[in-house]
Amino acid sequence: MSRADSGRKVTIKDVARHAGVSPSAVTLAVHGKPGVSTATKDRILRAARELGWSPNQAAQSLSGRAVHSVGLAIARPARMLGREPFYMEFIAGIESVLSEHSCSLLLRLVEPEREIDVHREWWGANRVNGSILVDLRVDDPRIPALAEIGLPAVVVGDPSLAGPFTSVWTDDATAMAEAVRYLAAIGHRSVARVSGPAELGHSVIRTDAFTATARALGLSARTVVADFSADQGGRACRSLLLSGDRPTAIVFDNDIMAVTALGVAAEFGLSVPADLSLLAWDDSQLCQLTRPTLSAMRHDIFAFGADVAQTLFDVMAERQPSSHAAQIPALVPRGSTAAPGA
Amino acid sequence: MSRADSGRKVTIKDVARHAGVSPSAVTLAVHGKPGVSTATKDRILRAARELGWSPNQAAQSLSGRAVHSVGLAIARPARMLGREPFYMEFIAGIESVLSEHSCSLLLRLVEPEREIDVHREWWGANRVNGSILVDLRVDDPRIPALAEIGLPAVVVGDPSLAGPFTSVWTDDATAMAEAVRYLAAIGHRSVARVSGPAELGHSVIRTDAFTATARALGLSARTVVADFSADQGGRACRSLLLSGDRPTAIVFDNDIMAVTALGVAAEFGLSVPADLSLLAWDDSQLCQLTRPTLSAMRHDIFAFGADVAQTLFDVMAERQPSSHAAQIPALVPRGSTAAPGA
Repeated sequence: MSRADSGRKVTIKDVARHAGVSPSAVTLAVHGKPGVSTATKDRILRAARELGWSPNQAAQSLSGRAVHSVGLAIARPARMLGREPFYMEFIAGIESVLSEHSCSLLLRLVEPEREIDVHREWWGANRVNGSILVDLRVDDPRIPALAEIGLPAVVVGDPSLAGPFTSVWTDDATAMAEAVRYLAAIGHRSVARVSGPAELGHSVIRTDAFTATARALGLSARTVVADFSADQGGRACRSLLLSGDRPTAIVFDNDIMAVTALGVAAEFGLSVPADLSLLAWDDSQLCQLTRPTLSAMRHDIFAFGADVAQTLFDVMAERQPSSHAAQIPALVPRGSTAAPGA
Repeated sequence: MSRADSGRKVTIKDVARHAGVSPSAVTLAVHGKPGVSTATKDRILRAARELGWSPNQAAQSLSGRAVHSVGLAIARPARMLGREPFYMEFIAGIESVLSEHSCSLLLRLVEPEREIDVHREWWGANRVNGSILVDLRVDDPRIPALAEIGLPAVVVGDPSLAGPFTSVWTDDATAMAEAVRYLAAIGHRSVARVSGPAELGHSVIRTDAFTATARALGLSARTVVADFSADQGGRACRSLLLSGDRPTAIVFDNDIMAVTALGVAAEFGLSVPADLSLLAWDDSQLCQLTRPTLSAMRHDIFAFGADVAQTLFDVMAERQPSSHAAQIPALVPRGSTAAPGA
């Protein structure tokens, strides 16, 4: 791939600007179509050579829509992808914007250590016009590697993790502080949390906010790490219920683990919410289908996915969108939270 | 796209066979690399011309891995994609096989009338090496149109709907007959069904089997058409419960509608299963999270998606796999079915 001085890929617009013509004149010239004079055609082809732009490489974007596909690589096991409502809703939201642009989503499940290669390959072979980067880790190696190849991308995660990329994020710190303040306000003094994987950036942000808010309010607080699965969520919940200082309320980092905890509470003969309050995160339809229904931090994930996709279109069109937070998750109290002993 | 006499696309193998050389000799010849004599090179290039095969068109598959992406177009609203466990499990199963082959899934939500163009465009621009066709309709226009362009594809649906394509299907007729016989065996005499869209091939097959089996057993039976959504499923369920001859058992074509029916039964003050038995289809984890749990026709959708993807790899490698049925959905009785009045 050839590139301009800035390090980004040379586009037909650069060639047009350099030759002092419109992009459509470049299209006519490189395809040998009538409509440009021989002198103009020569100037355009010279500009293309000088910038190192190859009409063959760009043939597909010249001959049709500029944006045909965007890429999304997810480092989760395939089995989990089908059971995790977050990704289903997120992908559906992305597709809602893509389908308006007759654009496809190129989806790949990867091992985390393979993801950089996948984006390089997609971008190098013009399989994608840009990518969405998710599950950002602290000091994520994808950021410098993909910035270097000039991949247009949007990072889903806190701007502190996003390097030079535009990011769209959820203000998890503010939302988590609200969750803890709510539990304290209705009378809980010992709270716990079952988190997602510790290496994920948003797990760290939530853990810090959970711990700091609980400390400021004088609550006893603990976090047990799990991996979003029903299995590990259930195990984490059991370990908390078996501990000496049993919490009266537990916050979960997704909904699957909170739903599983309903079953664990039943195993222990605990009534929800009288003996144990449960608070889920993300509020998929799952939370409304259980008995009792699950209180949750609601986050419109479909709208979030649509926002991320729209931002990527802005990046790909070089409209330089700014990083921005999506709507802050808001507490939706339902049947699984109440004062302890209520 | 050029094609051999059979109507399928000409491949490098055809050129090699025609010239009496190996495919790798064709690769060397068209790239002007050393390793083939001038006479052999001339013979290869003549063979390519005679068959109408263009090395440029095939450049990407010559220069790298043969299979980089497979396509899946789904004609459902984006909002529903995120809420329908079937598709996410199915996609996850497909991805489980694709990731072994370092292959990506190109996913597009389309209007039904646009789907043929999407596959044509993907195939023509070498964005996919093959496609998976789902939600087959009766006399589906995709079948002749995509057979004509020589797209390697696997049809998810009954072989009677698949034309010349290899199909992988679920024997819905046998499964539905089992469901109805089970309800009759535990004492139900008036059964109903809430189906998916009437134009889908598998809706027709299930409706026919439901009606025929109920008639053979002397049961009263009705089908109300819905669209898989919670809204329409709930509405269909209410209409059945308001009718004069209220059914004592209802079979649903997916799980979302059955879960919704639990809420509708509660609205009507009906106890499940004593007053009303509910039987879901597909048995996602949703069915195990409700109270009572939902009896379901279990179908391992993840394994089904994996089977479809593996079959497509066999088609793309010209191993000519035969059409075959996936495992027949099996009844998993849980808390939502019992004898009427039990």
